[in-house]
Amino acid sequence: MRLSKTITTITGGGSDGWDLFIKARKMIAQGHDITELTIGEHDIKTDTRIIEAMHAAALGGATGYAMVPGIDTLRETVAKRLATRTGVPTTTDNVLITAGGQAALFAAFRACLDAGDIALYITPYYATYPGTIRSVGGIPKSVTAEADNGFLPTFEALDAAAAESGAKALLINSPNNPTGAVYGRDTLEAIAAVAKKHDLIVISDEVYDTQVWEGEHISIRSLEGMEERTFVVGSMSKSHAMTGSRVGWLVGPDSAMPHVLNLLTNTNYGVAGFTQQAALFALGLGESFEEEIAAPFQRRRLLAQKALAGQNAIRLSPPSGAMYLMLDIRATGLSGDDFADKLLMARGIAVMPGESFGPAAAGHVRIAMTIPDAPFEAAIKEIAAFTASLT
Amino acid sequence: MRLSKTITTITGGGSDGWDLFIKARKMIAQGHDITELTIGEHDIKTDTRIIEAMHAAALGGATGYAMVPGIDTLRETVAKRLATRTGVPTTTDNVLITAGGQAALFAAFRACLDAGDIALYITPYYATYPGTIRSVGGIPKSVTAEADNGFLPTFEALDAAAAESGAKALLINSPNNPTGAVYGRDTLEAIAAVAKKHDLIVISDEVYDTQVWEGEHISIRSLEGMEERTFVVGSMSKSHAMTGSRVGWLVGPDSAMPHVLNLLTNTNYGVAGFTQQAALFALGLGESFEEEIAAPFQRRRLLAQKALAGQNAIRLSPPSGAMYLMLDIRATGLSGDDFADKLLMARGIAVMPGESFGPAAAGHVRIAMTIPDAPFEAAIKEIAAFTASLT
Repeated sequence: MRLSKTITTITGGGSDGWDLFIKARKMIAQGHDITELTIGEHDIKTDTRIIEAMHAAALGGATGYAMVPGIDTLRETVAKRLATRTGVPTTTDNVLITAGGQAALFAAFRACLDAGDIALYITPYYATYPGTIRSVGGIPKSVTAEADNGFLPTFEALDAAAAESGAKALLINSPNNPTGAVYGRDTLEAIAAVAKKHDLIVISDEVYDTQVWEGEHISIRSLEGMEERTFVVGSMSKSHAMTGSRVGWLVGPDSAMPHVLNLLTNTNYGVAGFTQQAALFALGLGESFEEEIAAPFQRRRLLAQKALAGQNAIRLSPPSGAMYLMLDIRATGLSGDDFADKLLMARGIAVMPGESFGPAAAGHVRIAMTIPDAPFEAAIKEIAAFTASLT
Repeated sequence: MRLSKTITTITGGGSDGWDLFIKARKMIAQGHDITELTIGEHDIKTDTRIIEAMHAAALGGATGYAMVPGIDTLRETVAKRLATRTGVPTTTDNVLITAGGQAALFAAFRACLDAGDIALYITPYYATYPGTIRSVGGIPKSVTAEADNGFLPTFEALDAAAAESGAKALLINSPNNPTGAVYGRDTLEAIAAVAKKHDLIVISDEVYDTQVWEGEHISIRSLEGMEERTFVVGSMSKSHAMTGSRVGWLVGPDSAMPHVLNLLTNTNYGVAGFTQQAALFALGLGESFEEEIAAPFQRRRLLAQKALAGQNAIRLSPPSGAMYLMLDIRATGLSGDDFADKLLMARGIAVMPGESFGPAAAGHVRIAMTIPDAPFEAAIKEIAAFTASLT
């Protein structure tokens, strides 16, 4: 079959970064006792009240085609949420409901890029970013956020990359997966300055916006002159432990959204009405519910800080947000890949090699804080002891 | 915002064909009593047993990320279904679960087309076809299936279009929306011959495969030498009255599917596990359930044939399949657009102008057989009387 170049080059060749994860899963299938700290998914399930709301909606008739832009009540609620939390006036005309944050990200890149156009993204990066750019025929170019700068991108690096590449768009993600960095106002101002200087559209993935442990979440869309050049990607997945429901949204200038709607008609023809009703109910549970969902990660972050106090083998930049820890294990002289493999084989603990998220995270491993407190704390202590044994 | 040419040209300019539908909906909102024969959606809701199965799955924990290719049990069931019904050996490696048939269609075009590549589709056509081709940067070229040939495409027309355009792919849809045509073996052999001659990938939209009133559904994938150049689009929407659930599948050569999977990772990151479990349960209800879902359309087709017997103003090519009727109203001298508008204003009946589905359906209107039998029969009689008054 004579497939398109676009689809056959989506991964960009090479490993997709999931080798260790797959190895661990195979070991589990073979009966090995493995502690998995790999996946960005809560150790709790979706709240039963949300599931019951979904069921009531389905029984009530929300099983036919839903309006492709999303149901009005959910669009309104998302609009109000963004207006309240970011201070940017936002209406239903700015909001389209998508089949999860990933679908919003895909739509945003399609909105910005024609085939052959370049988009910048920041490394370390979430696994799907370069592939999503390639999926619309775009060319991804990475900009390094240095470990020794707290994984924050700089004006100089972004400006140089934009000038050299002629990029059309720049993807940012704060709070950040995998690093836990939360971009402060200075960093966001620098990004905004680059965007204006080079006429870039900024795609801002803010799916971890309810998981901030230090500082505050600032949406780049709220910075002066940015509303007209920003798409914001949001999702119910991380904030409401609804990863599997695939409900998210794209927010952008009202002039752009009718075009994005045309795309959504042709990609998914809308999102199930009953899952949209579930999302609407979940948002109605308010901020206290979102804090409850986020609390375990904040708690485990402190457990890890305590467990790693007084040792020198691992350097932990305490994450400012999101559900991950980045451990700097460069003192061992090992790559993240080698370290993760040795840790898995010697101690039965699976972590993600930093290299899975790009060269900027080399010599690091990512820990997902997604297992209960006691085994989590034990695993961190085990990792510390293992690392010390290597140095 | 400097949007991509791709996203701003998805509709191809001009009307999207939904003007009459929107006018009718506005009249309903204003309190007018309108009979709607416009939409391809059952007048029943999704069966309660299916909804209960979805609920049990959600409560049972199917709320986390599902495997992106789809859950194994559903892929297996779809594979067996196709193998049994078409005779083509099919395994899970040939099947990927998608967020509805539309998502499968989008994925298939992305698999076939790079930007600037041409895809053929047959007019009259379902509304999203050309836009879906444009959404991946492709160029749609239509091939006419003449009304006076029962809306069946011919070897000559397809061969000429393929030769002239250098197309990479050809989209077909049997049973057909909007015409109700079911392609017989001769027509499918002609299409297969053109595909082989011009090295085309065939994308076969078979979402109406359970709604065949005359003849039988034949999948082009079952014709000699076609398995390796065919993608089949399937869906739960029409066969199981699950339009809003957004569960479908793409079936193709096992060598192609890993590439398609890479795309699905970047478009939707999978389909909700609980809706997949609902689909699995629904498929388990067997053929008798599918016949039950299809029965009203078969029944109403006969009602329409009887109601239109003995008049000459409307010519009805009795559809061989799907949930629509095409009425040839050329004897009135009116376009389908004008006829539909007059019918709406004079008799309060909304139908789709044939022109909404492409020039090949000019002078026709499409009736969706999606209201209960008694008002449906009355509406057909009313349309006949109205048409007679114009001739």
